[in-house]
Parts: sequence; C-alpha cells; structure tokens
Amino acid sequence: MIKVGIIGVGTVGASVVKILKDNSDIIEARSGKKIVPVVGIVRNISRNRGVSIPLSTNVDDVLKNDDIDVVIELMGGVNEPLKVIKNALENGKSVVTANKALLAYHRYALQDIAGERALGFEASVAGGIPIIKALREGLSANHIESIKGIMNGTCNFILTKMMNEKVEFKDVLEEAQKLGYAEADPVFDVGGFDAAHKLLILASIAYGIHANPEDILIEGIEQINSEDIFFAKEFGYSIKHLTIAKKCDNKKIELRVHPALVPTSQMIAKVDGVMNGISVIGDRVGETMYYGPGAGGDATASAVIADLVDIVRVGQSSPMLGFKRDLEGGGFTLLNSDEIETKYYMRIKAADEIGVLTKITSVLGDFGISVDSFLQKQDKQDKKIATLLFSTHTCKELNIQKAMKELEKLPTCKEKPVMIRIED
Amino acid sequence: MIKVGIIGVGTVGASVVKILKDNSDIIEARSGKKIVPVVGIVRNISRNRGVSIPLSTNVDDVLKNDDIDVVIELMGGVNEPLKVIKNALENGKSVVTANKALLAYHRYALQDIAGERALGFEASVAGGIPIIKALREGLSANHIESIKGIMNGTCNFILTKMMNEKVEFKDVLEEAQKLGYAEADPVFDVGGFDAAHKLLILASIAYGIHANPEDILIEGIEQINSEDIFFAKEFGYSIKHLTIAKKCDNKKIELRVHPALVPTSQMIAKVDGVMNGISVIGDRVGETMYYGPGAGGDATASAVIADLVDIVRVGQSSPMLGFKRDLEGGGFTLLNSDEIETKYYMRIKAADEIGVLTKITSVLGDFGISVDSFLQKQDKQDKKIATLLFSTHTCKELNIQKAMKELEKLPTCKEKPVMIRIED
Repeated sequence: MIKVGIIGVGTVGASVVKILKDNSDIIEARSGKKIVPVVGIVRNISRNRGVSIPLSTNVDDVLKNDDIDVVIELMGGVNEPLKVIKNALENGKSVVTANKALLAYHRYALQDIAGERALGFEASVAGGIPIIKALREGLSANHIESIKGIMNGTCNFILTKMMNEKVEFKDVLEEAQKLGYAEADPVFDVGGFDAAHKLLILASIAYGIHANPEDILIEGIEQINSEDIFFAKEFGYSIKHLTIAKKCDNKKIELRVHPALVPTSQMIAKVDGVMNGISVIGDRVGETMYYGPGAGGDATASAVIADLVDIVRVGQSSPMLGFKRDLEGGGFTLLNSDEIETKYYMRIKAADEIGVLTKITSVLGDFGISVDSFLQKQDKQDKKIATLLFSTHTCKELNIQKAMKELEKLPTCKEKPVMIRIED
Repeated sequence: MIKVGIIGVGTVGASVVKILKDNSDIIEARSGKKIVPVVGIVRNISRNRGVSIPLSTNVDDVLKNDDIDVVIELMGGVNEPLKVIKNALENGKSVVTANKALLAYHRYALQDIAGERALGFEASVAGGIPIIKALREGLSANHIESIKGIMNGTCNFILTKMMNEKVEFKDVLEEAQKLGYAEADPVFDVGGFDAAHKLLILASIAYGIHANPEDILIEGIEQINSEDIFFAKEFGYSIKHLTIAKKCDNKKIELRVHPALVPTSQMIAKVDGVMNGISVIGDRVGETMYYGPGAGGDATASAVIADLVDIVRVGQSSPMLGFKRDLEGGGFTLLNSDEIETKYYMRIKAADEIGVLTKITSVLGDFGISVDSFLQKQDKQDKKIATLLFSTHTCKELNIQKAMKELEKLPTCKEKPVMIRIED
C-alpha cells in the first residue's frame, strides 16, 4: 500500500481524494498497489470540503509522518510550497505538484534538491493533457523546433466568443466570470502570466533553458476588439492567445506569450472555447499536437494521479526536466525580445483626411517595415475618424515598437495604435 | 555507452541509424549515455541502404552478441520477429519494436516473456504520436470511456481528397499510390486491417482486453462514393475511417474499424490528409486528442528512439500493456458485433417509381429502424433510377444487417445497398 499526504485540499485536492477512491479498481490494477490518501492539510479546518480523509492544519502531520510515501503539494503560492517540497524530499518522500508558479521560478533548484527522488509536475501545464510526458519522453529523439500552445482556457474562451459572436472583450470577460471560467481578479489569466509560467516549464524540457517570467515577452488579450476580429476573419485568421518557444540561429531561443493571428487552417487554430492545445514541431517527427482540458478539478487531478501511478510503478521515470546532462558545447540562451522577427498586424485610428495613409506608411518605411495587406473602415460613431488595419511582412520587433511610438506622436493618430503579432 | 542492434534496415531502420547519429547531442544529453547502433541485420546485403553501420545477414550477430544491450526489431512479418524478440529477451536484452501485426496477435505472450525486461512498442501505433505513453501513463487515473482514432494515413488521405474534391475512390487511390501514400497492394490499408492491428494494441492498454483481428468488426473504405460525400456535407458530417474502442454496460467492450460519418465540429473530424489523430475520453479528464504523422521513416524512428531513451533512462518505464495485475472481479470482454448500437447512414439505388419509398421504409420498420433524415437524388446516367440517402436513429447492428439483406432482395432495389455508421 502507498500512503499519500495531500497539502492543500481545494478543488484539485478534493478531486484527487475522490478519484483515488472512485477509480481505485483501475488505479490499483495499473499501478499494482493500493494508493490511499491518509491525511489532508488545510488552513481552515472548519470548511467542509466533501472529502472522506482526516484533515489537519499541521503540515508536519505529512512531512514528519514516516508512514507517508508520497506528498502531493496543492497549496498555491511560491515560497511556502518550495520549503514544504524541499522538506518532503529531504525526508525521503516522493512529491507531486501542480504548482506552475513555483516551477516557473524554482524548477532547476527543485531538480537539484530532488536528485534521484521523483518529483512529478504533469498537472502544472495544460491540466489533463499529458504534455510534460509527451515532450520529455515521447519526443526525446528530436531537436524541438518550436512549441506553440494555447495554454490558458480563460483567454481561449474569451477569444473564441469574440470570434464567433459580435461581442467585446469586457462583456465576454464578465460572462466568463459568471460561468466560473475567469477569476474575480482576471489579470493573472487574461494578462498572460499564467500561460508564461507554463511556457517556461515546457521550454526547460525542450531546450534546458534558464529564464524567469520577468525575462520574457508577455502580453495579454485586453486590447483586442471587434475590429481586430473583423480583420482576422477577412484574411483567414483566428486570434489566439499563444505561448511560443522557438529555436533561432546561434543557440538562441525565443520565448513569448501574446495574442496572435493564426491561419484558420492550422490545427492549433481549431482549439476553441476553454480547451487547451499545444503544437510541437520536432526536427524528425514533424508536427504533433496535444489537445484537452487545461483546467478543472478532475482534469488536473487526472494528471496528478498519473504522476502518482508513475511513482508507484517505477519511482523516478525520467530526469525531472528531461536532461541527464548539459548539451555539449553549452546550452541555449534567451533571445532578446527586441530581436524577435515575425509579421505584424496593426490597428490605427486616424483622422479620415487626405494624405493620412502616406504619413503612416512613410513612418513604417522609415523603420524598414513593408505593408502586406490593408483594410480601411469608417468609424461608426465619428465619421471623421477612419480605422486603418494593416498587416506587415516579416520585420524586427524593435522596429515595430519604434514605429508604434512614432505613429502615436502623429497628430493625425487619434489613439494609441494597437499591434498583434502574426504566426503563419 | 549503450550498444544497439537493428534487425531489419528498411526505411524506418535507416532513419533510426541516421537520427541516432545526427541528433546524438540531444539524445545523449537527454538519456545520459551515448547510444550507438553497432550492427544492422538485413536479408539482402548487396542493397545500398545509405547507412553508416556494418551490415550482416546473420541475426545471431545481434542476438548472440553480448555487447549489444538493446535490440530493435523492424523486420516485418509475425512468426519470425516473435522468435527473434523472444530470443533477444531471453538473452537479457531489452527490445524495441514497431511491429503492429506481431503485437495484434502476440502482445500478451510477449508481455509474459518480457517480464521485468523492457519491450517498447510506441512506434507500432500512430507513428510519431506518443499515444502508447499517453494512454498507458498519462491517463492512468481514468476509466477509458472510448477511443476514436484516425490511424491509417492512406485512408485519411483518400477520404480527405474525396471530401475536398469531386473525385471517386479509385482515382484517389491511384494518386495516393503515385505519391507513395498507398502500397501497390493497398488492401491492408484501405481494407482497415492495419488500423485494426493498432486498435487492438490500444484496447489492451485501455481495457486489458484479449482479442485478435479476426474477432472484431473490420470494414474498409472501398465502397464509399461521391454520393455519400454529398450526403455527409449536406448534413454537417465528414467521412473518416475510424478505429473505435468503447466501453458498454456489463463490462463489455466494442471494438470496430470502419468508415464513419463524424460531425465536422468534432476535433477528430479536423484531422485531414495523411495525418493521424486519436481522441480518448477518460471518465475524469474528459476528451484529450493526439495528432501527428502516423507513418514515414523519420516519424516512426522518432518513436523507436523515444523507447530507446526510456530504456536507457530507467529500463522498463511501466508494465508493457499498462496493467500490473488484473482488474478485481474479472476484466472486460468483447461485445458481439451484432449487439453494437449506433446510428446508420444508408445509400440505396432504386427504381424511381411510385411507392418505392413506402416499400423501403416498411422493411426498415419491420426491423425497428426509424429514419432520421432523408435525401433523394435522380441518377445522372439513368433517369429511371433514384438514389435514396437515409440516416437512422440509434438501432442495433444486427437489425441493420438484416434490413440490408431484405432491401437487397426487393425488385425495386437496383444494387446492393451501402451502409456507413454515424458517430455523433
């Protein structure tokens, strides 16, 4: 029998307890052992969590309990769980965590602490989709060319609604909050930070790269409006909030999180609603894509228990972050965001007067940016205002950023221009 | 250093040798060891295979070579590879195989022979997609409700072409043969047998079920024509060749391989061309889907090497077919094909005369089959012939089969009726 202590019994923790009981037949047949949660650690013991195991507020009831083989950390936060996991590993226990924020900052430290001990974290990225396993084990023969993921269900729900119905960001966000798809404070999701944490975890497995959330380009979906949706549809794109890791020349890796125009023909563009999807391109296998629920108690608990079964079956099933040793000749380093090269879409509100287009394209020309396609719409409220919608050929991020600043200064520009990257 | 012997150096074998060399940097960093193919066994040694390793025609140069740690079996066939793998395992070697026919018949025997030794077979199902790993390890917390897969690239290429262009089966098959997507003798692919082998492997991992290809319902795509495509489009379906494993009541499992009408909104319907996709529904995680190249030397070799890296990292990473012991209270058994319940589409060529529809629906009524939707088209060549296209509500396979036989006997029916199952 394997005894499990659960630290943090919220939605996911309660699902873990329930599934270990309800599905004990199949879990025992697959793992070869009974897996029994023996205690749950909570902050507020008076709250009813609907779970059938003893609860305690003292974390030592897990950490210092020699009967417990595996610790499941679901407490949230960064510093506390780091201490708890360290303590558990040092006490000879295996650990499973779903804590993406913790891993976004401390995954390499945790790998060092874990050593030969198992530290599972499948649930930290894309909920029920076994993407950690696919990337770390299933694609291990490949140099990873790129990862493009839709890894935040809140963003995808909002953008899918905006694509399918004529609704604006603010209104869909309210609906998402009512449906429980968005938090009361939605910034962590719609601002792209949640997705960035997940991207950093995958990037470590793909490339062994060291980076923190502060180091990479992160943009949310707050600025997207129905005019952007209109342009996207007109030119055969879907707007998705993407997490991108891409191998460039000179052992550099691009890491970025932002909304993007994606051709509707791509599989990743077909991932709708709250679902997640991750497209991975390997140099030998080509494109594989992984699709499923990225959140929810049961889906996340499914991944937590998969780690648990792995631990029971074989202990540490592979090196935590996928590398047994460093790459010869040194590893990958992060590309400076200014150096990113891609195509861009721009939305500019300008006075509808003679010569305005010339002024704008001349600014773009000054920064070596050439226009690929162009749409002009009259403003519904103010007929003297035109909305200009551009897409560009490939150019450098730094040049687009500079051009945007210059455009904003033009007297003819009526509000701050908005830019969305294009991922063909 | 891990020394590897490859038995069978065709397209996949040559790719394995090439990738182990070209990607040795990343493979060594991930596995922690150099992995070196030291000898390849071939039937015809005079053929140039473009590989840089010594070749031999004597299989004992691998099996009786104590230096060799892992044997990769890529020879094809069933009885010979069974002997070879048995011999290799008994000689203390780990084994990796891509041989789906072998596993379709002998997977349980091989599991017994392997015991604690590793026997990897990721490459046997869906080429480069790590579906074995996902199902066996990633979803281990779940009772699997169903698996629906597009696992034959030849069928999917042909059906996608038929959906997108106005072309008939025979013509697309010829094109597929020219492009190298179909064999000169295409029956194994377009007849559904290749997909059936793969389905049996996945069904063992999902349900621990014992069955051979002869035991299950297998139909190919040869009978599908442009009229079926027309009906499918009209009612929002795509026609896909599906492999289906589904849990029914009373611990019964449906296993079937056949073309099916699938709503275009489903993710599996979006898997086009030669690509493969497998949708798995778990009772806790919900739907996850896995997409990628199901064939090709490099994609298949990517899966072979993933198994190899797993073996180098940890030896046997989990029980071969996913179960450490049998389910309590007995396992699942195969549902008799007659008992399958689903919806059906039917194509009937009949004399275009008064009362024909009554005659047909009366036969259907006799078997308790009720019509859901109906389309009638005049034949282009012969105006006295009408094509009647039906879909039914859910009914039993046995009843549909009986009704088809009765319909065929009607003097008004001008050719054998065709039926395609509908998977909503």
